[in-house]
Amino acid sequence: MAKPKKTPRPKAETPKGFRDYFGAEVTHRAEMLRKIAAVYHRYGFDALESSGVETVEALGKFLPDVDRPNEGVFAWQEDAEGDKPGDWLALRYDLTAPLARVYAQHRNDLPTPYRRYAMGPVWRNEKPGPGRFRQFYQCDADTVGAPSVAADAEICAMLADCLEEVGIARGDYIVRVNNRKVLNGVLEVAGLSGDDKEAERGIVLRAIDKLDRLGPEGVRALLGEGRKDESGDFTKGAGLDGPQADVVMGFMQAKGASGAETVDRLRGLVTGSDVGMQGVDELNLISDLLKAGGYGPDRVEIDPSVVRGLGYYTGPVFEAELTFEIQDEKGRTRNFGSVAGGGRYDDLVKRFTGQEVPATGVSIGVDRLLAALAMKTQGAAPDPGPVVVTVMDRDRMADYQAMVAELRQAGIRAEVYLGNPKNFGNQMKYADKRGSPIAVIEGGDEQARGVVQIKDLILGAKIAENATHEEWKDRPSQVEVPRDQLVAKVREILDAR
Amino acid sequence: MAKPKKTPRPKAETPKGFRDYFGAEVTHRAEMLRKIAAVYHRYGFDALESSGVETVEALGKFLPDVDRPNEGVFAWQEDAEGDKPGDWLALRYDLTAPLARVYAQHRNDLPTPYRRYAMGPVWRNEKPGPGRFRQFYQCDADTVGAPSVAADAEICAMLADCLEEVGIARGDYIVRVNNRKVLNGVLEVAGLSGDDKEAERGIVLRAIDKLDRLGPEGVRALLGEGRKDESGDFTKGAGLDGPQADVVMGFMQAKGASGAETVDRLRGLVTGSDVGMQGVDELNLISDLLKAGGYGPDRVEIDPSVVRGLGYYTGPVFEAELTFEIQDEKGRTRNFGSVAGGGRYDDLVKRFTGQEVPATGVSIGVDRLLAALAMKTQGAAPDPGPVVVTVMDRDRMADYQAMVAELRQAGIRAEVYLGNPKNFGNQMKYADKRGSPIAVIEGGDEQARGVVQIKDLILGAKIAENATHEEWKDRPSQVEVPRDQLVAKVREILDAR
Repeated sequence: MAKPKKTPRPKAETPKGFRDYFGAEVTHRAEMLRKIAAVYHRYGFDALESSGVETVEALGKFLPDVDRPNEGVFAWQEDAEGDKPGDWLALRYDLTAPLARVYAQHRNDLPTPYRRYAMGPVWRNEKPGPGRFRQFYQCDADTVGAPSVAADAEICAMLADCLEEVGIARGDYIVRVNNRKVLNGVLEVAGLSGDDKEAERGIVLRAIDKLDRLGPEGVRALLGEGRKDESGDFTKGAGLDGPQADVVMGFMQAKGASGAETVDRLRGLVTGSDVGMQGVDELNLISDLLKAGGYGPDRVEIDPSVVRGLGYYTGPVFEAELTFEIQDEKGRTRNFGSVAGGGRYDDLVKRFTGQEVPATGVSIGVDRLLAALAMKTQGAAPDPGPVVVTVMDRDRMADYQAMVAELRQAGIRAEVYLGNPKNFGNQMKYADKRGSPIAVIEGGDEQARGVVQIKDLILGAKIAENATHEEWKDRPSQVEVPRDQLVAKVREILDAR
Repeated sequence: MAKPKKTPRPKAETPKGFRDYFGAEVTHRAEMLRKIAAVYHRYGFDALESSGVETVEALGKFLPDVDRPNEGVFAWQEDAEGDKPGDWLALRYDLTAPLARVYAQHRNDLPTPYRRYAMGPVWRNEKPGPGRFRQFYQCDADTVGAPSVAADAEICAMLADCLEEVGIARGDYIVRVNNRKVLNGVLEVAGLSGDDKEAERGIVLRAIDKLDRLGPEGVRALLGEGRKDESGDFTKGAGLDGPQADVVMGFMQAKGASGAETVDRLRGLVTGSDVGMQGVDELNLISDLLKAGGYGPDRVEIDPSVVRGLGYYTGPVFEAELTFEIQDEKGRTRNFGSVAGGGRYDDLVKRFTGQEVPATGVSIGVDRLLAALAMKTQGAAPDPGPVVVTVMDRDRMADYQAMVAELRQAGIRAEVYLGNPKNFGNQMKYADKRGSPIAVIEGGDEQARGVVQIKDLILGAKIAENATHEEWKDRPSQVEVPRDQLVAKVREILDAR
């Protein structure tokens, strides 16, 4: 045993890459999750909550050649039981891997198809960066066991409904849909479908995934001979000739003025490829199904420039983008960008059961969506703090408790001051720090006369800001009312906001 | 590097001691947490959400003599950075230790007193047992920095409000209050206050903590010479003589017919002890403050038989008990028992800052409370599933999507069947598994006539159960309505429930 040593005082710090959330940060997110859950529920999705801890085996996060888990997850080994070494456990890094485990484990008890939603924290053992944390929320909905693209269409409609439900106006967002099968058709037409072309297909997939970052020219270079970046490093290209590269570039830029025009262009690009044609038909059907439900191109549109995730998904791919403009950190005007994405993937539970089960789903980035809403409502008043009942006479705490109980029973957020009441200025400073709209004051004189003083702190602050302002000069920021009108008067002031 | 080996198929299993929660298990808990949060908020408490991961150092969970964390937590060591060994991180095992860390870290930015609530999962690396899991929810509210027992009184009132808010009727619960200081007074009177009596005080504290399990006789034995348990093992007692032990026993049994009677008895027991008298005065004041707020002995009462946690807390201690009777697993009738507890503790942040900061708080056992409510509502109808729009003609999926979109826009939970529609029986089986109240059917014939069939599945099931029953025989379980009356008819059937 190590030598006993004196433990120094622990540091009061979050671990690197983690953070605390206070007040409205917590309640606004909870409210958003509640609204999204209500939409998911209305679409027939059932809640699922698995624990934060899974076996590393179930997460599929063992390194290929060794018995230690991938470094991207937080993992630890359970204590051995006798000769049996302990299992490796890990914190989940997303909500899809647990869904796969749950579906494989409970598939005989679950309905088919199984529509489920899940929301909660996930953990990534990655280098934290500005705004990137090692614990964050995910908010997913997936349909397991439905091969029909009607399932994908439904998820696109649901995504649109979710965005409107949390406060994004129609016209401020668009759900864009693409299809991996169309890209497969394009690759076939470009001569990249053979087994011997896997390396080239990989290069093309990685290239188009970088469209945002490199722009069309950069991608075009990677489709051909290759590309030298700013540092002078050279990335080998896929070696497509001009016409072949044109087909791939044409795919990403095939969006027309209407969905029908886009579909026509895509058909032209994949002529001769069965899988490509199937992909175009699927896009067309999704569009038709959505229109039948009232979800027209003002909310959901076919857009082949959606390339993110095309390497991962196997059929339809979708992304929700907020289209209103914001000022970024450098003061530049730009679109807010993507807040949700998803698509179809067919190997969900194969790893567990050997059986291929089709699945499609979406993940909403709640933290980005909260940031977007905060930007839209910049300048809006912060959530008001509680009414503060001050303590003028510490021996009459029961009277103050009675006041605060009355206010609370009327549904008004209220507190009695619980610090040292000796200094009244400290009580007012506390009310200010709490963002209190109103302070209630009852000293011995007021008590004797059966009245209370009600101080309008928001009005008071405005008067203090500009004491000569016409608007305020005749309005007192403090009024006296009979004790039995306390609740009514507080309600009146709060309602006038 | 280890030799590459073929990975066998992973087992689809939760780690031992963890479980999944489905559907209503998730939504009922979320709804309960939302209601409790609303009460906490109304009392002026602010939300706080810290992450699930803390440094082991901040949790205070290093073993005293070594550099490895306590086995009761799930812990792992971060990778080294250069020569610097990685920090030990761990999952939080409660919400109080993170509160201490947060308060020490952010105390200059937080109001004083700081009222905060927190709800979320915590993790215990313990042997799981029946109904005991290694991840579970806690739901806490604490006031930091308020020495006055007005803070304790407020928490008792809030606890009563929370219980009523989630559906426990007044009369079905009681919040019981005790005070560690009264026990300290009792110990003083019994001659156990000296520095040389620490061991005896420890024995007494452990003994009274076992009142539930051992009964008064067992405790009495432990206060005296000691006790032999069923296995024959002997536990040494505190060595109190008869009159001394009487004082301690008298404390636990001091509850009178009224609060005033209880207070009188306690005063009698602690006469001569300053701390004891202070404790009795505090109990009396808490009772007065609560009465002033309308919280009389039908909701909150002084009860010295609340002994759980007396060893941990430093002042007032409280516990909420459900008083209605239930049948336990063995069919015996008993009270449901405790669902929440808390009290005052004064060493919250001392470990970090050296400064003593008073704190008082409560933790509501949401899982126990959910179990209690489920027992009360036994036999109530389960949450209804979605309306299912069946697929009679797979080429007309757009028509079915339009129906389901109309239903959802009217706020009705609805699904279109997304499995293979070939076998209609399977669609009905699916609707049954989903607990659907209604199935909608539109075949080619109905379409031609502009109508839909609406099948009342709950009524249908009742008729099937007892086909000759008078009540049902004239009511058809399937009706035909014009297509444009689909939503109205579905709403009518759902509202009739």
